[in-house]
Formats: sequence, structure tokens, C-alpha cells
Amino acid sequence: MAEALVTAKNLEQFIFRVLAANGLPEVDARTVANLMTAADLIGQDGHGVFRLAQYVKRLKAGGINPTPDLVLAQEFPASAVVDGDNGMGHLVMDNAANVAIDKARQTGVSWVGSRNSNHAGPASLYAMKALAEDMIGLYVAVGSANHMPPWGGTDMLLSTNPIAVAIPAAERPPIVLDMATTVAAYGKVKTAAQRGEMIPEGWMIDRNGKPLLDPKRSSEGFLLPIGGPKGYGLSLVFGILAGVLNGAAFGRDVVDFNTDSESRTNTGQFILMLNIGAFMDPVEFKSSIDGVWDEMKSSACLPGVSEIRLPGERLHATRVERSSNGIPLPAALLEVLDGLAEENAVPKLERAAG
Amino acid sequence: MAEALVTAKNLEQFIFRVLAANGLPEVDARTVANLMTAADLIGQDGHGVFRLAQYVKRLKAGGINPTPDLVLAQEFPASAVVDGDNGMGHLVMDNAANVAIDKARQTGVSWVGSRNSNHAGPASLYAMKALAEDMIGLYVAVGSANHMPPWGGTDMLLSTNPIAVAIPAAERPPIVLDMATTVAAYGKVKTAAQRGEMIPEGWMIDRNGKPLLDPKRSSEGFLLPIGGPKGYGLSLVFGILAGVLNGAAFGRDVVDFNTDSESRTNTGQFILMLNIGAFMDPVEFKSSIDGVWDEMKSSACLPGVSEIRLPGERLHATRVERSSNGIPLPAALLEVLDGLAEENAVPKLERAAG
Repeated sequence: MAEALVTAKNLEQFIFRVLAANGLPEVDARTVANLMTAADLIGQDGHGVFRLAQYVKRLKAGGINPTPDLVLAQEFPASAVVDGDNGMGHLVMDNAANVAIDKARQTGVSWVGSRNSNHAGPASLYAMKALAEDMIGLYVAVGSANHMPPWGGTDMLLSTNPIAVAIPAAERPPIVLDMATTVAAYGKVKTAAQRGEMIPEGWMIDRNGKPLLDPKRSSEGFLLPIGGPKGYGLSLVFGILAGVLNGAAFGRDVVDFNTDSESRTNTGQFILMLNIGAFMDPVEFKSSIDGVWDEMKSSACLPGVSEIRLPGERLHATRVERSSNGIPLPAALLEVLDGLAEENAVPKLERAAG
Repeated sequence: MAEALVTAKNLEQFIFRVLAANGLPEVDARTVANLMTAADLIGQDGHGVFRLAQYVKRLKAGGINPTPDLVLAQEFPASAVVDGDNGMGHLVMDNAANVAIDKARQTGVSWVGSRNSNHAGPASLYAMKALAEDMIGLYVAVGSANHMPPWGGTDMLLSTNPIAVAIPAAERPPIVLDMATTVAAYGKVKTAAQRGEMIPEGWMIDRNGKPLLDPKRSSEGFLLPIGGPKGYGLSLVFGILAGVLNGAAFGRDVVDFNTDSESRTNTGQFILMLNIGAFMDPVEFKSSIDGVWDEMKSSACLPGVSEIRLPGERLHATRVERSSNGIPLPAALLEVLDGLAEENAVPKLERAAG
């Protein structure tokens, strides 16, 4: 089997069928399938259909509740905590983002946290829900496995705790920052290991503080935070805001969802929505963001650099390209998906012609 | 003249007198003097009385308005924009933080931005205003001089755009993160130059992309962001949130307040306040933060590391120490302050006995 292209429509339909076959109500299966496909469309290959087998494993093992009863456990005019009842993280955060948008329309800004949630795919998906509403979205999650000690330590008490911020522009693509607080995301280390490649110095160290360059030895070391103690501080603070404040897991309580498919993860996240109209005319603001784009692009470049990039530029280009040409899936993943089709008695994922 | 200790009380009184002599109403001079002294108490030596001469220069040159008329230019139930009328940044952000606290008490979360503000000292001061209110504070500012290009570029369009987050604990000190989005703050480079020391590789590069190690050559290069493109993304996004969204300066419009004392800077900042009681019982939350402290401290250490530190730990220890023993001021600074006393016809700053 070789790499093949699939259309977003077929991919979404396939994911929908697999999730519905695993007990998700149709409306929820559609929501999750749409978000997972959106992850593949924007090039977040490690966070889209790549995760389907893992989610199904957790659904079958009882690690995720297919029919959660989402409730607002806390509510103030501009804030809330959604208790996800251990449902799919996508559902929980889609719901939280919708609540946040409704609130910010009234109050100017809103902050909605989650507990008893789960891995929800790429951070940018939820921040980007702001864009169509003339809002700015900011999303933070407690990562679903600890790969980092506090600065100077060796006990892995912290995760990559990512942040995403999405800011609408007028004619230019939106500015979308989506980053881990570690130099490299753990997925990149796993990818290098699969390919038999070394990783650059600065990504990981071992328990003696020495650079770890062979990703096959990754279990002997840990990820390094950006800016040393600064990235440690960001990861810690984001973990408190997305975890502790919501009554969600943090520190030693974080369940490694890669190795444990049964335990409730009690994942925490939060989404902040800023109503641009509460600050200035949204048309004027978006036009100013076009200006920011052009100004950054206008900078002279270092030797060897051909062009300044804006955060979200590649994401946008990937979405445009994949929406029209299809989403490329590697052979190994297609094999896993065909296995899922068989196991769950749904039609195989249709490959695009050509 | 040698280094000397001064008490916080005497320092605050001295700053108050100098500011009042430069046209600030007494109540405003007191507010600013209190915040500037607080900066010295927490060890932010580059952001306290060290800046007084520069502020006075701007006040005398017309670069700062001593009697601003602060107004809420925009207001929603949970958000606002304070127009600072080119007043001292401390006044503007003290006001913004108070507005934000009042709002968050009602709404759960609030976000108050500023425009026509000025340099306001260390970011942590305003975030820390949350602590006594059982709130979490988050502050971001557009830095008052551009020292960084977009990633891969050579035009200095971005500043160190710092972030501070303050989180209350019960028995332990609060967690206070206060960091620039660059590997090193520009002040550290200036300090190294004054001392005739080299700076470490990774702080700055020159226009050819080569490491710049001699801080006396700092004008030939620029600061590096934390995590490469990630820190660039953070600086960009923070600058948009604290600057563009408030109608404040960003990019090429940022005035370098070190070299220009006359032009209105139109500095932008924002403060976010989270009412912990809107999420969970504040007593339970603060006890959980004690738990986070103890958990991080419990980590085994890398060879050569004796103890894990929490963000804000040193700040807290410095405040305790200086509150009881006094604030050490270097000889060169004391000389400047004595000059200011003479120039503004106020009594010299009294040195502590001993």
C-alpha cells in the first residue's frame, strides 16, 4: 500500500462512521469528525485522523465516555467551567468555545475552562472558532502526557502545555500561533525515531543533563522548555490556568494517554474569547492586521532567508492546497484506518481518484 | 560615593517629592512613587528608581503629561480600554488594574487595555495587584523600544513584549512569572556592557546572523526570541493584543523612549483579571497552589542543581529581605539621584544608618 490522497468530505464521513459505530450519538460524531478533519486540512497531521485509532481504543476500553452529559459546573456572566463528563475533548471544547463566544458578545471578553475533558486535537482549532465571529481566540491545554521536569529537575511533572492564539485579518490570512512551551513537540521526536533520524541538540537532554540526540532513547530523557526557565514558567502557569483552576489534572495526576487507555484523564483546557467590537471597529482592526502582515513581510532578511513568515501562514496555505487537492495520508496510517473499518464494520476510507 | 542602603519609606518619599516637583498632583505622585518603590523592593532594579531620571527628563521635555485626564474610551461589562492621555504608565495601569478587579468581581474575568500610556515599570507589579483580591492577574505590554526583528529578518519591528502572571498561594509565596519574550531583556545587555563583560551566545545575533558576544556592539545586532520562531510569534501576538487592539503603537510606530524624550509613545498594555471564586473555592485553590509548589520542589535534580525554583520565589525572598534590611543602590545611581534632588529642589535621598 502506498501513500494516497483522500478528500476532506470522504475523510470526515469515514471518521463519523467509526465514531458512531463506537457509540457516539450522530450529532456528536459529526462534530468530532468535522474537527478532526479540520486538523488534517490545516496540516496538523499528528492531531487529526492519525489519532482515530487511539480514540477508538479508549472508547472501547471505557477510557472515554461516548455519551457524556456536558454541564456548566460554574458560571459567571463572562466565565464558566464545562464539566465534560469524560467525553471526547473535541466535543467539550467545541461546546466551551460556543459558550465563550456567546458570552463575549455580551461582555467583551470571556473565559471558559474545562474539566473531565480529553485530548482535543490541535490547539489552533478552538482559537480559530473566534475568526468568523470578529473575535480573537486564545486556547491553552494541559498536555495529555508529561514529558518535562521543572527547570533543573528530572521528575517529569509538566507537559508541553500548548497555547494557540487566532487573530482575524481582512485580506490577508488570519494570524494563528499554535505552539508548545517546549522547543519541540513530543510528536516530532516520535516521527524522527520512526524515520531513523537524529534530533537536533536543544530538543532533549538525558538524566545527566547531557544532550540527547537519538530519539530512540527518548524515554531516557525529557523535552527542554523554550528559553530555559521561561518556558518552564509558561508551562507551569498554563497548567495551573487550564488544569488546577478548573479542578482538572496537573502534575503527577496527569494520565499518559499514550500508554493508558482506561483511566479517566480529567484533562483541563480553557478558551478565552475577545470581542474585537468591544475595543474598536472590527473592520478597522482587521485592516490593521493586514498592515501588520505587510510590515513584517517588508523586513529585510538575514543571509540565507528568502522570506519572513507570519504565524499561521503555512497553516492557511496547507488548508487551501488540501481543500482543493486532497489530504495525503501515509501508507502505514491507511493500513491502520482500513483495519479500523473492518473492526468497526464500516466502509473503508475511499481514496481520491488520480 | 559608595553603594548604600535606603529604606523603602525614604525611597518612596524621595520619588514622591521629585515627581510632585515635576507637576504630578500629590495623589498621583504617591501612586507612582509607591509602585516604583515596589519595583525596587522585589529586585526589579532596572525598573524602579533607576528609571526616575528618565521619567523626569520626559516630564520636563513634554514627553509625558503630568496631569492626564484618564478616561474609559471603550467599555463593556467585562472589558474596557483606558485612554491614558499620555500620563505616567504606572498611573494608567494602576487605574486599569483597579477597573479590571471591579469588573472581574462581577463577571468572573475581565480584560482592560490601555492606549496613550507610557512605560509602567515591571510587568509583575500589575499582575500582582490580583493577589490580595483572590484573583489571578495577567499583564502584557508593548515594550518601549524595538530590539527584535521578525524571525529571519533584520528590521527591528518588535520589542521584548513581556508577560507577567501572578497566582496566589496559601502558605507558600505566590507564583509570579515575569518574563520577556526574548532570551535576555535589553537591560541585561546594557548591564554587561557597563561591566565590560561578554554576553553568552544565544542572547543576540548580528546582521549577518552570527552570534554577537560583545555587548558594546549591541547596536549592530538584535535580541533573539525564546524558542526561535515561537518567541517571535509570542512577541507578535502580545504586541497585537496590547498594542493594535487598543489603538496603541506597534511595529514601526513604537517610539524608542531611551533616545527620544519628547514624542508621545502611545504605549499599549493590557491586564486580565480572573476571579478565582468564579471557578472554585479560593481557599481550596490556594491550598492546591501550595501543593503545586511542594510537588515541583519534590522533583529530583539534575547533577549540579541543588534546588528546584518556582517563578516568583526569588522576587518574594528579595522583598522580604529588602523590606527589613533596606534597598541597596549603586554609587552611580545615588549620584544621579542626588543630582535630581538638587535640580528639583527637594531634599536628598536619605541613606539608611549602618
